[in-house]
Amino acid sequence: MTTTQARTEPDPGPGTEPQAGAPAPAGHGGHGPHGYSAQKDAHLKRLRRIEGQIRGLQRMVDEDVYCIDVLTQVSASTKALQSFALSLLEEHLRHCVAAAAEQGGVELDAKVAEASAAIGRLLRS
Amino acid sequence: MTTTQARTEPDPGPGTEPQAGAPAPAGHGGHGPHGYSAQKDAHLKRLRRIEGQIRGLQRMVDEDVYCIDVLTQVSASTKALQSFALSLLEEHLRHCVAAAAEQGGVELDAKVAEASAAIGRLLRS
Amino acid sequence: MTTTQARTEPDPGPGTEPQAGAPAPAGHGGHGPHGYSAQKDAHLKRLRRIEGQIRGLQRMVDEDVYCIDVLTQVSASTKALQSFALSLLEEHLRHCVAAAAEQGGVELDAKVAEASAAIGRLLRS
Amino acid sequence: MTTTQARTEPDPGPGTEPQAGAPAPAGHGGHGPHGYSAQKDAHLKRLRRIEGQIRGLQRMVDEDVYCIDVLTQVSASTKALQSFALSLLEEHLRHCVAAAAEQGGVELDAKVAEASAAIGRLLRS
Repeated sequence: MTTTQARTEPDPGPGTEPQAGAPAPAGHGGHGPHGYSAQKDAHLKRLRRIEGQIRGLQRMVDEDVYCIDVLTQVSASTKALQSFALSLLEEHLRHCVAAAAEQGGVELDAKVAEASAAIGRLLRS
Repeated sequence: MTTTQARTEPDPGPGTEPQAGAPAPAGHGGHGPHGYSAQKDAHLKRLRRIEGQIRGLQRMVDEDVYCIDVLTQVSASTKALQSFALSLLEEHLRHCVAAAAEQGGVELDAKVAEASAAIGRLLRS
Repeated sequence: MTTTQARTEPDPGPGTEPQAGAPAPAGHGGHGPHGYSAQKDAHLKRLRRIEGQIRGLQRMVDEDVYCIDVLTQVSASTKALQSFALSLLEEHLRHCVAAAAEQGGVELDAKVAEASAAIGRLLRS
Repeated sequence: MTTTQARTEPDPGPGTEPQAGAPAPAGHGGHGPHGYSAQKDAHLKRLRRIEGQIRGLQRMVDEDVYCIDVLTQVSASTKALQSFALSLLEEHLRHCVAAAAEQGGVELDAKVAEASAAIGRLLRS
């Protein structure tokens, strides 16, 4: 776990994502364990952009930027997070829920209830 | 309400923000240029925590964590961002909008319209 | 607070829902044309309650109730609408998306994209 | 899309809004007790339109309209409710919060905290 290190890392700068172009490990194709592996690079890229937005917010606060402009940037970051969530959810429905549908019955019900609960949390956040 | 106490907490820890404990520049008190300067350290602390959450999301995606668990963390980060926005907005109303109210008329109308537009963007994001 | 009154309002008017208490037509069981037929009565009941809340809001505005109290009631109505949407969506996933999963391929992709777009609209509203 | 149908519903029923077109009582001008009196007719009109949308939703469910189309209409209604809330809030800031600003101190703090709490409820709904 590199959280602490990562958090004190001063600069995302160039070369922040050295592994982005590297070949995905075997077995992480479109039908990987959780459905979203094929999109992993795209997801990571989106999240790094959001991380950059959050750093931008810190800079804005630090430089006493006008509050309304900070709020505009918060809205943009929230939108980006929701959009990331939506793409993750779409993959989940396509892969996990569809796989459960083939099994039917209890398994499908559980997956659908789980996905609905996740959508509910997104709606309330 | 212990918010004020929390907000005046001097330092979230060594190394995270070298300038945090330094004296604020003159004129950056509670009634500074944009109203939120007095809370600057608290705001920066919150944003760094959100940045940590976004890094955590990258790690989760990278480690193929189950999508629903990733979505739960996205909801938590969105909630934290909205909560940050709300505290920024509250300060803005208390300082900038209140100051405009003293001037009245056109100035107040402009500030209220501006704040309402910002709230509208938050609601839609 | 006139919320309770609004909720117990017996009838939104003649002609709005003549079949609400009548037996569902043949073929509208849990696996009816759009998945939600079995829950039709429950859905109609929820919507009538929301309609009562909107009427309650009109009464509050008409009686000059304090704006913050009106806003609290708006939040409750919005929450009720989102909750209704979520239950509709859950049924849709359970029936329509699951049925598409059995057909697979293009059909499933289309249904998942459609459901995701609907979720996106809910998130932005 | 049956949205238009719902919106063109002529009348929400007798007795719901007898005073809507009647002249406002004396003393309910733009600076009335709660700030929104001057806009009362506009607010009531908006709410009646939303009530019509909710009735439209009941008709859609009753007629087994495709769930995704019902969800689209729910999003439209939620958006309309949020937009109504925003216009109410804007008036509240312009009148009540501004009036409190003139008194300053404790009164202003209380009004700002109250408005912020209302905004928070809207964000979470």
